[in-house]
Amino acid sequence: MAAQPTREDKFSFGLWTVGWRANDQFGEPTRPWLDPVESVHRLSERGAYGVTFHDDDVVPFGATAGERDTILARFRDALAETGMQVPMMTTNLFSHPVFKDGGFTSNDRAVRRFALRKVVRNIDLAAELGARTYVFWGGREGSEYDGVKDVRAALDRYREAIDLLAAYVKEQGYDLRFAIEPKPNEPRGDILLPTVGHALAFIAGLEHGDIVGVNPEVGHEQMAGLNFAAGIAQALWAGKLFHIDLNGQRSIKFDQDLVFGHGDLLNAFHTVDLLEHGSPSGGPAYDGPRHFDYKPSRTEDIAGVWASAEANMRMYLLLRERARAYRADPEVQEALAQAGVADLRNPTLADGETLRELREDRSAFEDFDADVAGARGYGFVRLNQLAIEHVLGAR
Amino acid sequence: MAAQPTREDKFSFGLWTVGWRANDQFGEPTRPWLDPVESVHRLSERGAYGVTFHDDDVVPFGATAGERDTILARFRDALAETGMQVPMMTTNLFSHPVFKDGGFTSNDRAVRRFALRKVVRNIDLAAELGARTYVFWGGREGSEYDGVKDVRAALDRYREAIDLLAAYVKEQGYDLRFAIEPKPNEPRGDILLPTVGHALAFIAGLEHGDIVGVNPEVGHEQMAGLNFAAGIAQALWAGKLFHIDLNGQRSIKFDQDLVFGHGDLLNAFHTVDLLEHGSPSGGPAYDGPRHFDYKPSRTEDIAGVWASAEANMRMYLLLRERARAYRADPEVQEALAQAGVADLRNPTLADGETLRELREDRSAFEDFDADVAGARGYGFVRLNQLAIEHVLGAR
Amino acid sequence: MAAQPTREDKFSFGLWTVGWRANDQFGEPTRPWLDPVESVHRLSERGAYGVTFHDDDVVPFGATAGERDTILARFRDALAETGMQVPMMTTNLFSHPVFKDGGFTSNDRAVRRFALRKVVRNIDLAAELGARTYVFWGGREGSEYDGVKDVRAALDRYREAIDLLAAYVKEQGYDLRFAIEPKPNEPRGDILLPTVGHALAFIAGLEHGDIVGVNPEVGHEQMAGLNFAAGIAQALWAGKLFHIDLNGQRSIKFDQDLVFGHGDLLNAFHTVDLLEHGSPSGGPAYDGPRHFDYKPSRTEDIAGVWASAEANMRMYLLLRERARAYRADPEVQEALAQAGVADLRNPTLADGETLRELREDRSAFEDFDADVAGARGYGFVRLNQLAIEHVLGAR
Amino acid sequence: MAAQPTREDKFSFGLWTVGWRANDQFGEPTRPWLDPVESVHRLSERGAYGVTFHDDDVVPFGATAGERDTILARFRDALAETGMQVPMMTTNLFSHPVFKDGGFTSNDRAVRRFALRKVVRNIDLAAELGARTYVFWGGREGSEYDGVKDVRAALDRYREAIDLLAAYVKEQGYDLRFAIEPKPNEPRGDILLPTVGHALAFIAGLEHGDIVGVNPEVGHEQMAGLNFAAGIAQALWAGKLFHIDLNGQRSIKFDQDLVFGHGDLLNAFHTVDLLEHGSPSGGPAYDGPRHFDYKPSRTEDIAGVWASAEANMRMYLLLRERARAYRADPEVQEALAQAGVADLRNPTLADGETLRELREDRSAFEDFDADVAGARGYGFVRLNQLAIEHVLGAR
Repeated sequence: MAAQPTREDKFSFGLWTVGWRANDQFGEPTRPWLDPVESVHRLSERGAYGVTFHDDDVVPFGATAGERDTILARFRDALAETGMQVPMMTTNLFSHPVFKDGGFTSNDRAVRRFALRKVVRNIDLAAELGARTYVFWGGREGSEYDGVKDVRAALDRYREAIDLLAAYVKEQGYDLRFAIEPKPNEPRGDILLPTVGHALAFIAGLEHGDIVGVNPEVGHEQMAGLNFAAGIAQALWAGKLFHIDLNGQRSIKFDQDLVFGHGDLLNAFHTVDLLEHGSPSGGPAYDGPRHFDYKPSRTEDIAGVWASAEANMRMYLLLRERARAYRADPEVQEALAQAGVADLRNPTLADGETLRELREDRSAFEDFDADVAGARGYGFVRLNQLAIEHVLGAR
Repeated sequence: MAAQPTREDKFSFGLWTVGWRANDQFGEPTRPWLDPVESVHRLSERGAYGVTFHDDDVVPFGATAGERDTILARFRDALAETGMQVPMMTTNLFSHPVFKDGGFTSNDRAVRRFALRKVVRNIDLAAELGARTYVFWGGREGSEYDGVKDVRAALDRYREAIDLLAAYVKEQGYDLRFAIEPKPNEPRGDILLPTVGHALAFIAGLEHGDIVGVNPEVGHEQMAGLNFAAGIAQALWAGKLFHIDLNGQRSIKFDQDLVFGHGDLLNAFHTVDLLEHGSPSGGPAYDGPRHFDYKPSRTEDIAGVWASAEANMRMYLLLRERARAYRADPEVQEALAQAGVADLRNPTLADGETLRELREDRSAFEDFDADVAGARGYGFVRLNQLAIEHVLGAR
Repeated sequence: MAAQPTREDKFSFGLWTVGWRANDQFGEPTRPWLDPVESVHRLSERGAYGVTFHDDDVVPFGATAGERDTILARFRDALAETGMQVPMMTTNLFSHPVFKDGGFTSNDRAVRRFALRKVVRNIDLAAELGARTYVFWGGREGSEYDGVKDVRAALDRYREAIDLLAAYVKEQGYDLRFAIEPKPNEPRGDILLPTVGHALAFIAGLEHGDIVGVNPEVGHEQMAGLNFAAGIAQALWAGKLFHIDLNGQRSIKFDQDLVFGHGDLLNAFHTVDLLEHGSPSGGPAYDGPRHFDYKPSRTEDIAGVWASAEANMRMYLLLRERARAYRADPEVQEALAQAGVADLRNPTLADGETLRELREDRSAFEDFDADVAGARGYGFVRLNQLAIEHVLGAR
Repeated sequence: MAAQPTREDKFSFGLWTVGWRANDQFGEPTRPWLDPVESVHRLSERGAYGVTFHDDDVVPFGATAGERDTILARFRDALAETGMQVPMMTTNLFSHPVFKDGGFTSNDRAVRRFALRKVVRNIDLAAELGARTYVFWGGREGSEYDGVKDVRAALDRYREAIDLLAAYVKEQGYDLRFAIEPKPNEPRGDILLPTVGHALAFIAGLEHGDIVGVNPEVGHEQMAGLNFAAGIAQALWAGKLFHIDLNGQRSIKFDQDLVFGHGDLLNAFHTVDLLEHGSPSGGPAYDGPRHFDYKPSRTEDIAGVWASAEANMRMYLLLRERARAYRADPEVQEALAQAGVADLRNPTLADGETLRELREDRSAFEDFDADVAGARGYGFVRLNQLAIEHVLGAR
């Protein structure tokens, strides 16, 4: 039996997840409004250590300054009562009609200016609440049609916005890093920075990229048919996995936001393994919040909402157990060796060897028997079968 | 009627395209071997300016040095006779069994060393033949199973290989740049650097990244459901569109390699528009070869092969005509203005304005009427309809 | 220039299309409520011949009988004033929370009974308004999880519902046929009867299947990566293409509902060609309404809504023109002959020939030279290029 | 620990699976030819009860009658020695160039006749060897381009072929049924009868459809993003699940043919549950062979081939164990009840109730409180979590 979640597990939830009223493209809400204060208490009781939110999740768009203060005071009280943290915050630049062509990259400059202001205000709140990560999901930054958006100009504006805000964070001395969340499409037909790769490349072109990383979401990468574990491995390789959104997705389709592990279970296993142990051969791992960005299915009532929140944490803990047993299994170690997994950590050139020397090494080419080397069996299927048997708890 | 292709159009073809014998996963070859020398002549007659090739396309894997010299001498003669160029070359690190787990990132170090040597030898030939671009398509760099490949270590090895080879090119003084060609899957279950974004991010982490860019292929991005025109726009934005592979793909499935424009015709139109004119608002465009990397369908005989080669060039020329007419149409210009396409080139902050000043600009936030701004109609559908009518030759 | 739409073109629109307020999964409405009466007038002015609707599109869910009568009377007046027809009607079994697990196949029997009643009431109205087709889109019939829905039992209930309603239509003597609209997913994770094929197979198991056919939607089939033109060809083959939903989709992703032709333009061309001419070799074609089921993009204001409605009709007319020219082109006819397209209409056995006789025909097997036959070039690429050049208006 | 496979488990393998030489679209074979006789012995030792094959898997295309007799005699001996059965056979109508545009639906009538003859000959052998199922996978029946294939005529020819052959089987008194295997694409751009649904619909239009069913393959349905368990449930509902191909696929991409369970593990669990128990609520289940149609990865040597064969059977047995425990768990039963899963077996109308009576039942509509019914929580997420915990062996 998996252990119960504790604060040390660093489980966090978006308030918009449990609070989703279950209205979708084709249907009305099936659940009543859920008080964020209520969510803080219920999640705390279940072992989460933190909540995260968009500005508008707590303070409705258009609230007066006075209303805002009142709401936030009450919210702070709930945090204080429960000891819950706010490890991450973000901005809603997608719900209001004003953002229908995007926020930072809207074709309307006045909208871009408004978006910047909306973010700055919320960054101040994030710093005040002790958030260490500020997420940017640009769900409306994109277009449906190729001719209506100048993508190069849009990337210029995106860079302008992120660099301005990052400079602001530095000037203010906030202990806050940015994390860009990629998504290939939905709600826009094509979204800018559609994958982890595109976001990492964008960050490399920033002036203040040192405090900007990525916040990959399981389902978003899988909506492009990409391997999530491989994607976050590249983010880790780049030193840019600043935050993570765990959930579930079943194949390439609309954004399902299922409970973590309720989609591609095997990739979820390897994701947990990677987050916990750094790589198949070990190494520095991910140290941040295990953040669930999912939606309790529309068929659920409020009891189902809390059951689904628990399910996310339980999936993570169970898969963590399985990953530990997998690594401790001598037969797995033997299969890893046969597969040459750790060999890949060895540089291709020997220590001190130069390319010139490699060119003179006849054993590498002229005398290399490609047919013999090509006959090697890597035993990948057997290794994969061992992993699955650990997932199944069958070893 | 579109003009005939000329050398100024810079059309090039892989020898492996027209030379494909039409064997596939489920079937035997349907066409005989095609002599590369024959291909050079036939493509030259049709208006192409260049051919490109993998080492093994011209000189069979395992040929002796003497055989290699003889074959290459005859090939050089064909180039000399026709005046055809070799603007790009690349290496086959995927056909021989020795590469079944990859070349630069094989779990077998001896294979990695062999791969490096195979590439170096061919880079020398590329420089000698005057190629300006050397492409790296790592089709076998990846895996089918998440636990069998240490992706971070694999990216280390990939970087080691590319940096070593780029340093070599610099040392030799070759006028040659590298272009990495991304692909999400096939033949491996998941391939490293699966999209243009991932490749750009990888390049940003190289020591010698200044001479490394990308070679995006239409179908490869579309196999991940990504917008090709948007992808190459990001590559252009990063200054990294060093080469391009034009072909056709119909939705997310196996790699089809159809004739350019025979897949998503509208995206092909916008791709040509972008290559020729730089962006919807103009600007620096792509100046390199228009390279076709396609496969003549398995149902075609040799006459069909040449017809398909012609079709690629004709598609490009027709779409270029359409793009020019589109831009010259006053109604298009008016619709672009209504859509605010050029507005996106305007920085969000005014010239000299600071974020502090923006924060004090009440018109940007406190006095900004989001509801009014949200009611704006961008006219994107009309603009798209105008584009399509130009594609249809209906205006 | 394409002709203006006329009533003879049989263009119809769902009231929910132009009337969509542009609220989506992540955003609020960007457009005000549009009076159905207004839509009838505006569409009539633009050349449409009919409107279609779900019960709740015109009469809000939960309206009293009196309210309903008032609303319908006013709606009938608009029809009378404009001469617009209502060729198709359908039921909303997806928006209200009561349908969150489906209508006909909800796990809750009381919901299933309510759904049946809601449909019956609206069928009576459909008959009264002269509709000839009643569509069933079971968007909520399905599930997110494999263990929560007994698919065989669900198909039993689906059949029970359709057969009961079809029997009712016959008993009442209504001149009305049913058309089932498949969709693979969204809003449910997996929807029952996900493709045209599944729906046709379901219909074959009905007691009253003689009055039940399909209503394929372009985007729905393409969301499964399927070829729409091929799908409706199978429906035509089965004598079951009772209605059609034309729109646009770009690859496998969420349901985009773009303007017809604004997605896969080449498949749209062949769809129009098939609807107008029956098959590449001619034959009985589709005779029903050309119904547009699309959504004006969320970026558009009301002027953009009407521009988008016009764009649908214009796309159809332009493609119809292109299809006629394609068929009239002697070079196309010659290429069709080379490709053997019409040969496929010839039975494989000669008139009167038996399988026994075929088995004795040595020319068919023992003396058949497979290598020679395998060398034939079909010229498919050239034929496809000719089709595209007609699409481009380039011949 | 799962039991060892026994003959009672009815595991069968295609000879082309373990015998695949691992040549793919981009690479040469990595394994030597495997003698079918060897495969029969090795599979028998591991607990399989049968092998299946295409004609050309055992007797090379073009062999003389004498060669054929010699090869088959030796093959029969191996069957006799091991007691292995041949429960299914099929025809290769896709490898030789002559079939490049299909077999039964080639645009070339001579090819269609040749294909019929090739099948008839092999059906005779199938009957002689005691096969009970004859599979038709029409991998080349389709096209890359919409205008080159008359789909309606192609379906006519497909029907002609299947009906002729089915009539032949009946005439000969063979105890043999046909099973059509759908696939959406690859090697053709679009394949006829792309999904289980399309095949079932086609069968419904046959004259001799009584002996024709389907042979769904896990990966083929998942290549269209469809739910495999739901697909075979519809086939069972139609009484047409005559055979099944078990393997693994990871998302929408090329046909991966992984080991069963090495793709979507949760759907594999529910597939086994369905095959073994008929439905979530029980009922008649699938009684035929559990046939593995997979490919040992190209990275494996011959030892890896046999390890992969074992992995398939082991996955099935482990998931069968999990499914039994799942059903025996009282908490699962309670959750199934809350979810109303069995309620769906209850007809919507009461026993003897008519639609007229339903229309007079005010409790079903006029007095039905949709808001109250809409508030019900189905507990689907909890039920799904219970299923996954059983998969994980965590309960």
